[in-house]
Amino acid sequence: MGAVLLSEVATQAVIPACAVVGIIFSLVQWYLVARVKLTPDRHGPSSSPVNNKNGYGDYLIEEEEGINDHNVVIKCADIQSAISEGATSFLFTEYQYVGVFMAAFAILIFLFLGSVEGFSTKSQPCTYDKTKTCKPALATAIFSTVSFLLGALTSVVSGYLGMKIATFANARTTLEARKGVGKAFITAFRSGAVMGFLLAANGLLVLYIAINLFKLYYGDDWEGLFEAITGYGLGGSSMALFGRVGGGIYTKAADVGADLVGKVERNIPEDDPRNPAVIADNVGDNVGDIAGMGSDLFGSYAESSCAALVVASISSFGINHEFTAMCYPLLVSSMGILVCLITTLFATDFFEIKAVKEIEPALKKQLIISTILMTVGVAIITWIALPSSFTIFNFGVQKVVKSWQLFLCVGVGLWAGLIIGFVTEYYTSNAYSPVQDVADSCRTGAATNVIFGLALGYKSVIIPIFAIAVSIFVSFSFAAMYGIAVAALGMLSTIATGLAIDAYGPISDNAGGIAEMAGMSHRIRERTDALDAAGNTTAAIGKGFAIGSAALVSLALFGAFVSRAAISTVDVLTPKVFIGLLVGAMLPYWFSAMTMKSVGSAALKMVEEVRRQFNTIPGLIEGHAKPDYATCVKISTDASIKEMIPPGALVMLTPLIVGTFFGVETLSGVLAGSLVSGVQIAISASNTGGAWDNAKKYIEAGASEHARTLGPKGSDAHKAAVIGDTIGDPLKDTSGPSLNILIKLMAVESLVFAPFFATHGGLLFKIF
Amino acid sequence: MGAVLLSEVATQAVIPACAVVGIIFSLVQWYLVARVKLTPDRHGPSSSPVNNKNGYGDYLIEEEEGINDHNVVIKCADIQSAISEGATSFLFTEYQYVGVFMAAFAILIFLFLGSVEGFSTKSQPCTYDKTKTCKPALATAIFSTVSFLLGALTSVVSGYLGMKIATFANARTTLEARKGVGKAFITAFRSGAVMGFLLAANGLLVLYIAINLFKLYYGDDWEGLFEAITGYGLGGSSMALFGRVGGGIYTKAADVGADLVGKVERNIPEDDPRNPAVIADNVGDNVGDIAGMGSDLFGSYAESSCAALVVASISSFGINHEFTAMCYPLLVSSMGILVCLITTLFATDFFEIKAVKEIEPALKKQLIISTILMTVGVAIITWIALPSSFTIFNFGVQKVVKSWQLFLCVGVGLWAGLIIGFVTEYYTSNAYSPVQDVADSCRTGAATNVIFGLALGYKSVIIPIFAIAVSIFVSFSFAAMYGIAVAALGMLSTIATGLAIDAYGPISDNAGGIAEMAGMSHRIRERTDALDAAGNTTAAIGKGFAIGSAALVSLALFGAFVSRAAISTVDVLTPKVFIGLLVGAMLPYWFSAMTMKSVGSAALKMVEEVRRQFNTIPGLIEGHAKPDYATCVKISTDASIKEMIPPGALVMLTPLIVGTFFGVETLSGVLAGSLVSGVQIAISASNTGGAWDNAKKYIEAGASEHARTLGPKGSDAHKAAVIGDTIGDPLKDTSGPSLNILIKLMAVESLVFAPFFATHGGLLFKIF
Repeated sequence: MGAVLLSEVATQAVIPACAVVGIIFSLVQWYLVARVKLTPDRHGPSSSPVNNKNGYGDYLIEEEEGINDHNVVIKCADIQSAISEGATSFLFTEYQYVGVFMAAFAILIFLFLGSVEGFSTKSQPCTYDKTKTCKPALATAIFSTVSFLLGALTSVVSGYLGMKIATFANARTTLEARKGVGKAFITAFRSGAVMGFLLAANGLLVLYIAINLFKLYYGDDWEGLFEAITGYGLGGSSMALFGRVGGGIYTKAADVGADLVGKVERNIPEDDPRNPAVIADNVGDNVGDIAGMGSDLFGSYAESSCAALVVASISSFGINHEFTAMCYPLLVSSMGILVCLITTLFATDFFEIKAVKEIEPALKKQLIISTILMTVGVAIITWIALPSSFTIFNFGVQKVVKSWQLFLCVGVGLWAGLIIGFVTEYYTSNAYSPVQDVADSCRTGAATNVIFGLALGYKSVIIPIFAIAVSIFVSFSFAAMYGIAVAALGMLSTIATGLAIDAYGPISDNAGGIAEMAGMSHRIRERTDALDAAGNTTAAIGKGFAIGSAALVSLALFGAFVSRAAISTVDVLTPKVFIGLLVGAMLPYWFSAMTMKSVGSAALKMVEEVRRQFNTIPGLIEGHAKPDYATCVKISTDASIKEMIPPGALVMLTPLIVGTFFGVETLSGVLAGSLVSGVQIAISASNTGGAWDNAKKYIEAGASEHARTLGPKGSDAHKAAVIGDTIGDPLKDTSGPSLNILIKLMAVESLVFAPFFATHGGLLFKIF
Repeated sequence: MGAVLLSEVATQAVIPACAVVGIIFSLVQWYLVARVKLTPDRHGPSSSPVNNKNGYGDYLIEEEEGINDHNVVIKCADIQSAISEGATSFLFTEYQYVGVFMAAFAILIFLFLGSVEGFSTKSQPCTYDKTKTCKPALATAIFSTVSFLLGALTSVVSGYLGMKIATFANARTTLEARKGVGKAFITAFRSGAVMGFLLAANGLLVLYIAINLFKLYYGDDWEGLFEAITGYGLGGSSMALFGRVGGGIYTKAADVGADLVGKVERNIPEDDPRNPAVIADNVGDNVGDIAGMGSDLFGSYAESSCAALVVASISSFGINHEFTAMCYPLLVSSMGILVCLITTLFATDFFEIKAVKEIEPALKKQLIISTILMTVGVAIITWIALPSSFTIFNFGVQKVVKSWQLFLCVGVGLWAGLIIGFVTEYYTSNAYSPVQDVADSCRTGAATNVIFGLALGYKSVIIPIFAIAVSIFVSFSFAAMYGIAVAALGMLSTIATGLAIDAYGPISDNAGGIAEMAGMSHRIRERTDALDAAGNTTAAIGKGFAIGSAALVSLALFGAFVSRAAISTVDVLTPKVFIGLLVGAMLPYWFSAMTMKSVGSAALKMVEEVRRQFNTIPGLIEGHAKPDYATCVKISTDASIKEMIPPGALVMLTPLIVGTFFGVETLSGVLAGSLVSGVQIAISASNTGGAWDNAKKYIEAGASEHARTLGPKGSDAHKAAVIGDTIGDPLKDTSGPSLNILIKLMAVESLVFAPFFATHGGLLFKIF
């Protein structure tokens, strides 16, 4: 055992300090983005936006002639405010509905957990050490409910802020694209960074404050304290689920609907302002990809921290009340913020992008730099915050762990994340042969495109699964469930950078949309398209991280659940467990069926409305009349609000029903089954979708000899590619990314309700 | 315990008697089919084919005018012989390559199993009862190798005979279609029955003889005897794997290639004789769907029998040497043959199909009748063959089981099969809303068609999984792994009927192809199309049975493996098992990626060749010149032979590598993971494919108001439907149905190699 270098006081100071640094850094980035003015410039060159060394003349050099500068700026500002309004109004509607659900669920948590000991206010012997006295189950019920609401609220704030930043940045990126691809890149990337740092720092800070506040009541009962804290993860993930599913249905209904009539039937470009669904489509990017992804990764982060903390609380850290060691997960995240801060400077300040070809390498470098720096960072934290040897709770026994072993656990998660990122890039970027093969298969039509795309997605699962398996094996062997939890934290420690490059994608996508709608020249559009193509890949990488970390997090939560539910083995060869495993493996399919059908049905409605407007509004297709954007926004909103409830309920109610009626063994099977099956579908769905999107962009861009033989836009091969892209939309942006929330959420929910299931669960088997 | 009603002598007589009855019945059916003459009728009405009460006049009534009767018959005979030759030649080539692989694998089995006790010829203490003496491991090695080769050979014979029957029947069905849909139906169905009964009886007989021959050496060492017999299952499934994969790639490369150029580019009908790939396409139906399915279901049957026998041998039946009770699995199969015999008469003799609408109900009735009769049959067998109480080996302990409990185990499997059949029918028949919704989504193009189709496939998984889960729970709880094995046998007990309605599909499909190629009237083609549409559904039902029984069989084999490998729990919460579970769940994706890519690539080659022929052979499209069918046949053959090796090797080598290097715990995880994940993909893939195919047929047939608004052939909606159909081809006929072999094969292989893994496995962990 032995003392640690970092004192408790220092720990208490370092964590909030890092969080505050992160927040300040994100505000600085915001300020830099805000310097791109969205009001027409009436004072000449001296107050020229962004960069004073670029004079007015320079400003015009890259700009094509024939476009009134003032008008473009005003148009962009108008479009931006329309998108921002649409997104805000949707999120408010969504939060209202989800709010009711969350309130009901909060009551459920209180009642279920309170009932464990009949709402008694008497202190009880602790679960893991019967010689000690712990706070009553009623306290756990109350504090779990509070932390659940806190997690939900933090998730809402994360998603909402992300959306605000993205809608603030999109038109600014468009305007910067007039000056060249480098400037546009920096604006989009900085905006992503604002979101990344704000979320990472915010999540850390709220968790830190909650722990310290709860401690006022719980005192030395760390077991109860950190059990109650897990509600934070549940709240975060529950909100994320609705955000992902609702936002995903919204964005893809609009996208598919807009494309099917606009691009396929009417042959007008993507994001053409004549398309009635175009605003809904752009709103969707912000509420689905940005707000949804923000909530999702925040949820992963909150859950892996909670999983690590709850295991640590019943290990030597918790038993001996070693505060610094206990806070190791939070310290790793704190270090992550500092590392990402330095990493960001490499993209925005140390180097500058000058050509389209440099975009993807720049983003890739972000991943590499952050991983290398973080490895050093984790080594430092491990050295100063952990005793050289300690014990970790491992299903009933305490297991001795050396600090270097724990360093390896975090490290293996971190590097597995990098591998997953690179594999995802390889399979979804049109710079490599997999996507080019898919594009090539468009020669023989949409059918071969789909067959090749599906095969690509299936194949892309192999290496990530091995990477996850190795991480699990190493961290599990070294430090049991605590090892898995910190491996997940390792993968998520560079979350700020991950979110930055992830949010960059939809912002660029929106920027392109705004350029098109504002009637800017095709050169501007080409630049934003180049940013966007890289964005598709980074979005897929982000999803790779999300799913990889979700797998680790779920396993850690699953382990914590099993410990808490006091079962020592989950034996596949018992009927209760095996049927759970089988049914659990089916749940991702059920869930995907629901979400895909929802997108399909909503898209059909959207198609009918868009067709109706083209047919009934005179002069619309010629550009004389304005379409009725609001009706399309309403269709997307109504569809997503209505359709997000059944899949959401499926995920939220399954653990409750299984745990209550079939008991903890079957529930363990369900968790393991949905985990191992869901990971595969999630990875393959998002990579297939990303590959189709980029295969289409590959043909459109025509950057190589091969690509030109397939193009141009409108060729048969291109039409086949568009069909693939459309099919990929719900796969990559609705069902795929929702699945990682499914597996995490069921695990964290089981953990929160574990005391109830352990006491009252398995009704059906008790009766028969 | 107590005596049983059926004496050992009676058992020894009943089993081969039933098998022989099955073989005779199938020969009678063959004779009836053969009465349709494929030579022009030169003797007038008196020797009119098939049915003397239909005179020559009657013969002409339903026939359209303007078609020279003699010519059509000669043409049909020619086409049939071309198809038959192609199929025979492919199967021979395939068997040559696979033969080498199988020989190598046989040597591997001998070496691995022989090495368990260093090739010692000394008798050893038994595994489960150390007080007794069992035959040496070398004997197990030799007999396992022999039974492996026997299983492979039986599988080859099954597939080959099935193909021969189908190619014998297809042109006869076409000719009968001239007399009406009822006659054609009976011919196609009878031919299916020939295959069904021959396979079921053959599988039973060979197994029965092998047991009796092995007994001559093994004597009272039933443990060793039935351990060696499991090689039979491994041999059967190994052949089935190559049959399914090779045949699947062959048929779909030809099908996709033919459709993409013929239907989509050149706008000529399906199966048009001008299409160079048309013979390859029709050959494919026979080598893929017929021979592949035959081998597959034979494999399932052999494996579930072996799994039941091996568990029984270490239960009270084996310990007390109760031969009749020991043969319970074989007696159930024997009863199944009798039940199916009666059931078949309902379709061919008791009732007659008169209209298109009656086809599907008639096939459905087959399922219901056979299930009801079989329930009674199982009750009888259970009553006469089992003592009222006995013990079953359950992971180290003997569990007391009542005979009525075992009856419920078989019954639950049987009825779960029926439920799976009905659900599959609901999701893939165009008489119900799911397929009609998919057809409707073609209005907005191929993309929505694909989205809806995928969602349908995912959704169709739900009820079958619950049905399988309930079967597992009931049979597992009552009689552990023996219960699961007999539940699988229950599901497969009506295999003769299942195969009959399944083989009926491709025969009808071929009949349609021959009608088109022979230039017969569109009325004939309409009739064969109607048969074929029902055939798509029955094929999907057959696949449902195959996958449902595969899930149960694999679990039973898995349980037997775990018992044999002497591990008592498979705890998910150990790193070794969990990474196995995760990687196992990935294998079906890896496998599907390989097979789908293979189909895609082979189809691309086929497309190029077909295009080349259309472009370079003058007068081909006008019908003046004959295409070069042989080159297309060669492309399919080469592609499938080359491409079947990697996926085959993946499946065959994985258990060996995992078991040898990582040990039995990880292998257990891999088996469980691939089982729970593979089942879902297999069901969803085959149902999605079936639904797309029938959505297309729904639009083409235009039988309802709704269908007519989507059609006719060549409309945009129809084109979208064709794209879906083409995508579904590899899903439903290559990757989907191969997956059930994947999960079964890995399980049975692990069981066969269990003694080796238990002794020498887990090298990697032993070193580190």
